[in-house]
Amino acid sequence: MNTHAMSKLQDSCEKNGPLCIGLDTDPSYIPQEVLRAYTSPSEAVFAYNKAIIERSAGNTGCYKVQIAYYEAMGIAGLQAYAQTLKAVKSSGVPVIADIKRGDIADTARAYARAHFTGEFEADIITVNPYMGFDTLEPFLDFTKSAGKGFFVLLRTSNPGMIDIEKLPLADGGIVLDAVGKKLNSIADEYRPHFINATCSPVGAVVGCTEESDALALREAYPEVFFLIPGYGAQGGAARIAAALLGKVGGTVNSSRGILTAWKKLPTADSGSLTMDDIANAAAEAALQSKVELLAAKKEYWKL
Amino acid sequence: MNTHAMSKLQDSCEKNGPLCIGLDTDPSYIPQEVLRAYTSPSEAVFAYNKAIIERSAGNTGCYKVQIAYYEAMGIAGLQAYAQTLKAVKSSGVPVIADIKRGDIADTARAYARAHFTGEFEADIITVNPYMGFDTLEPFLDFTKSAGKGFFVLLRTSNPGMIDIEKLPLADGGIVLDAVGKKLNSIADEYRPHFINATCSPVGAVVGCTEESDALALREAYPEVFFLIPGYGAQGGAARIAAALLGKVGGTVNSSRGILTAWKKLPTADSGSLTMDDIANAAAEAALQSKVELLAAKKEYWKL
Repeated sequence: MNTHAMSKLQDSCEKNGPLCIGLDTDPSYIPQEVLRAYTSPSEAVFAYNKAIIERSAGNTGCYKVQIAYYEAMGIAGLQAYAQTLKAVKSSGVPVIADIKRGDIADTARAYARAHFTGEFEADIITVNPYMGFDTLEPFLDFTKSAGKGFFVLLRTSNPGMIDIEKLPLADGGIVLDAVGKKLNSIADEYRPHFINATCSPVGAVVGCTEESDALALREAYPEVFFLIPGYGAQGGAARIAAALLGKVGGTVNSSRGILTAWKKLPTADSGSLTMDDIANAAAEAALQSKVELLAAKKEYWKL
Repeated sequence: MNTHAMSKLQDSCEKNGPLCIGLDTDPSYIPQEVLRAYTSPSEAVFAYNKAIIERSAGNTGCYKVQIAYYEAMGIAGLQAYAQTLKAVKSSGVPVIADIKRGDIADTARAYARAHFTGEFEADIITVNPYMGFDTLEPFLDFTKSAGKGFFVLLRTSNPGMIDIEKLPLADGGIVLDAVGKKLNSIADEYRPHFINATCSPVGAVVGCTEESDALALREAYPEVFFLIPGYGAQGGAARIAAALLGKVGGTVNSSRGILTAWKKLPTADSGSLTMDDIANAAAEAALQSKVELLAAKKEYWKL
């Protein structure tokens, strides 16, 4: 194989901008009057996702679908999840399944099959490395055989990341450095297999919540593409995202900021919003985010 | 609330023995001739689970359903997953959903709703603590409001557990000690809320793969009930499990050893096995495991 999904994502972000639209579409993010027009919350969720995907073409590098919100709607929710993955694939940009799975070998193999083939097939997934690096092997097998990519949790954007990820280690550094070291060794190992790829097939989740460590993290992992949460509704600033966007780059997720953009419409409380109204507001918010991120990147890196 | 699901699980293990039957039911664990009798692999999987549940009553403290194998079968697989949870509930013993989810607050709330209510409702789930202790809060909310329980990954049974869980920390101890300290503080915090409970609502996953640390782990967490993988097919010995079963106790998982017990039948390769044959073999293996575990516990603790 000459390239892989992560390199394609990097290309897409180069072409369409660094935004990653997060489809964490909880029914509570949809106004009542719009929900009521559908036979079920999961149908409304898929319709909203589809309308956003149609309207944001060219302004997003990819979409990320957070499976938790779909699991919370049961079987019907997972049908909406599968439909959403399919709709993104038709749009031509990569789809990231934010599943954060992690388990021992046999079970990880089942998760890899679940999310790299069949109804829930995604281009790229997110993976939790806590149980150890043997748990990554089944996902790497799909990288080799099918060009799939995955992001490993490195520095997450929640306050609790100090509890384990930042614990100081006896021989220097912190826990997340051990994960990062593995990511660099994976980059070395897989480089010869993908001669046309311009980044490692395995990326890292790096939240943009602290300016002090953003640039250091960017420098430490020269071939590792980043999935960057914490921008927008989570409170991260565009400037920190910009630091992480330099060099090999990354994609900056915004979920609630886009999905609930309709709440800022003058007609938000009118009880008369339509699916068109809320999807247009989402698409407009996506465009604004793209513009903000590109400007911040230009400013930060003096491009 | 006077008690919670973890205390009920402890009671069930006292009454029915410490075995936890793991329904990690991959279709490849079912002989071809049995699979062919069903319209789909997921139907065969549910029928096998149901037959095992019916035949193992009284010989297992609980059942653990590993969601990865069901996700790998797509929507139909998740239907079989929901049916399996329901079948265990009808049997009267607790059901553990082995989902190992872990995510930031809003997303963790969606996972908690997904697996503590609705179609995928379980009594107890497994949780990955890597992103930090704020990620546990939404699950604790269901402990308080609905008596739900969960197991947190502490010392897993795979070789890769040395990569992060066992990393030495600058101020002494290893990474998993930080998780364990949190588990003890949760036990303290929740004790007054559940006056009839005899253990903490939050347990720990502790693999029985190393004798050297088993007793130390058991002593370090006096109120924490253990979910113990690594016995049987994963190579753990009953003696190590027994060390972990002392004091407040635990439940010892066996999945493949039970699900593929039919492979040891003299007729295994005859091409004529029936669902009855394989379910009886599974139930017989469960009974043997129960007997072995009880004997090992008696011997270890000189009861």
